Amino acid sequence: MQPIQSVAWSTDGTAVTIIDQRCLPSREVYRDLRTVADVCSAITTLSVRGAPAIGVTAAMGLSLALVDDTQDLAKARQSLRTAADRLRATRPTAVNLAWALDRVVRRSEAATSVAALRRVLRDEASRILAEDQAMCRRIGEHGASLIEQGSRILTHCNTGALATAGTGTALAAIYAAKSQGKRLEVFADETRPLLQGSRLTAWELERAGIPVTVLVDGAAAALMRSGRVDLCIVGADRIAANGDVANKIGTYSLAVAAYYHGIPFYVAAPWSTFDPSTPSGGMITIEERSPDEIRRGFGAQTAPDEARIFNPAFDVTPSELITAIVSDRGIHQPPYDFRHLIS
Amino acid sequence: MQPIQSVAWSTDGTAVTIIDQRCLPSREVYRDLRTVADVCSAITTLSVRGAPAIGVTAAMGLSLALVDDTQDLAKARQSLRTAADRLRATRPTAVNLAWALDRVVRRSEAATSVAALRRVLRDEASRILAEDQAMCRRIGEHGASLIEQGSRILTHCNTGALATAGTGTALAAIYAAKSQGKRLEVFADETRPLLQGSRLTAWELERAGIPVTVLVDGAAAALMRSGRVDLCIVGADRIAANGDVANKIGTYSLAVAAYYHGIPFYVAAPWSTFDPSTPSGGMITIEERSPDEIRRGFGAQTAPDEARIFNPAFDVTPSELITAIVSDRGIHQPPYDFRHLIS
Repeated sequence: MQPIQSVAWSTDGTAVTIIDQRCLPSREVYRDLRTVADVCSAITTLSVRGAPAIGVTAAMGLSLALVDDTQDLAKARQSLRTAADRLRATRPTAVNLAWALDRVVRRSEAATSVAALRRVLRDEASRILAEDQAMCRRIGEHGASLIEQGSRILTHCNTGALATAGTGTALAAIYAAKSQGKRLEVFADETRPLLQGSRLTAWELERAGIPVTVLVDGAAAALMRSGRVDLCIVGADRIAANGDVANKIGTYSLAVAAYYHGIPFYVAAPWSTFDPSTPSGGMITIEERSPDEIRRGFGAQTAPDEARIFNPAFDVTPSELITAIVSDRGIHQPPYDFRHLIS
Repeated sequence: MQPIQSVAWSTDGTAVTIIDQRCLPSREVYRDLRTVADVCSAITTLSVRGAPAIGVTAAMGLSLALVDDTQDLAKARQSLRTAADRLRATRPTAVNLAWALDRVVRRSEAATSVAALRRVLRDEASRILAEDQAMCRRIGEHGASLIEQGSRILTHCNTGALATAGTGTALAAIYAAKSQGKRLEVFADETRPLLQGSRLTAWELERAGIPVTVLVDGAAAALMRSGRVDLCIVGADRIAANGDVANKIGTYSLAVAAYYHGIPFYVAAPWSTFDPSTPSGGMITIEERSPDEIRRGFGAQTAPDEARIFNPAFDVTPSELITAIVSDRGIHQPPYDFRHLIS
């Protein structure tokens, strides 16, 4: 089966249609986002998540900024700037978000009428969508070369079709290896607190006919020790110039365990995730999310209201724990040096 | 405030009263267990959990085996044996359970009437209860010597008053250090899948006035890297002759991370947890629990029904990752050799 399409223009072209990832795995619900506020809310609440999907959705969301029928170009530009600022603030760690917004805004600067502005917003967002799909294909091709016949692969969070507009980043490598006829087995960390691994990765891999086993995050090291993992592959939210990787909380724990057990640890991410302006992982701002994700994440009270909560969305894995980084431009080996990227 | 009392004889003496740990942290519910089936169910469903509390509760539960008014000693002994077998089968990994049951059954062998048998069952179980409380005090005293003023302590699962009939094992050390006037800060892994850390450890430490911060299991390594952890202390379900430790799933992951960061990793457990007949951790049977703990643990569907689940209750931490083991008999340093224990 084909992997899911997570973000697209609505049929009538007036909205951005997403699959609401909060409803998975029990229900497959699609939503039409009709305003910038809808898009901000979809990103903040994680209805849309995954750095590339966020970037694409935000870029498409900019085309919803010009709501009224004004022909005043200055006013329209002001609406666009306000929308870009609001969208940018939804997830401070994801570099793709800022990258996609900047790109659409920059491209729109040449427009000399509101009509032209509308057209360029839509065209540039469509281009970003198509490029994202091509990017996934290329990451998949490069990444599949690291995966041997019969590999047992441990992954974390969701880095698949649900996280991008295409087939994913780390999961793109798995989909590509599978389509090359390789027999595979995937282990998916459930990925607390929001369970993107058990809810999303397990759902989309099952749907695509790839055998998947879910485990709690704390069981990953024991699974490695038992000799049942050949390699780990995860995504990235931001990659610093020295190869340090910010990714979903729990990634660092997995990297340390893989290192201890001598298991290759790969990161797969689009070129837009590489941030040459951030020298090392220590400079990356780590978003802290709501304590309620820990206190009452799934309807039940799971921690006392009085307890303090430490709920970082991301952690940083230092480059020395990373065997190789796969991007749409190829496989990057250590020592990593992304200071002189040409984007 | 005093730590909670998790198991006791009911006021009228005809039942075993427990706090139902499945209701925490939102409700403090006590239940009277009136039959062996009640006790088995309480252990299987984790209403009672923690190796020492399970042992004490099962020992007390044996006194519920003689339900009818028979004066036939052979029949009464048969009921007792059946009850012991049923109780023993509830949790195959916890060595305290078998230990406590064997002790009560052995002690009861000298009884020459049903009345005497009833008396000895109750007396021996009461003795195990009292000894468990004394054991906790001693572990606390020894363990507190490892905890310095101002220590920031990471712990896993629940090893406190809720896990024992006294103040706990790993948490006993924390309670004892606190009562010596040491300023402390505790970090509690939430401990998926059943969240004993966030639901139970956070609840009982808060209640006792000790500052506690809850984090997802996957965040522990990142917390260590940030320099905010001075030591780890966890409990044990079984300790092999060579010092390998079976404990709640996630313990091994924590031990690997502590080792990588050069942070001391302590295990605290009662003497009854040491199993000289098991040469090493590789020989320990690891219980696998229901996939539903992962698929729908908290009322919501958190993984697809089709996905396979790997849900081990325990993992094994090899002795080389353990800085010291604290028991009621003192502090045991490596190299560990518990082959010649006199119990």
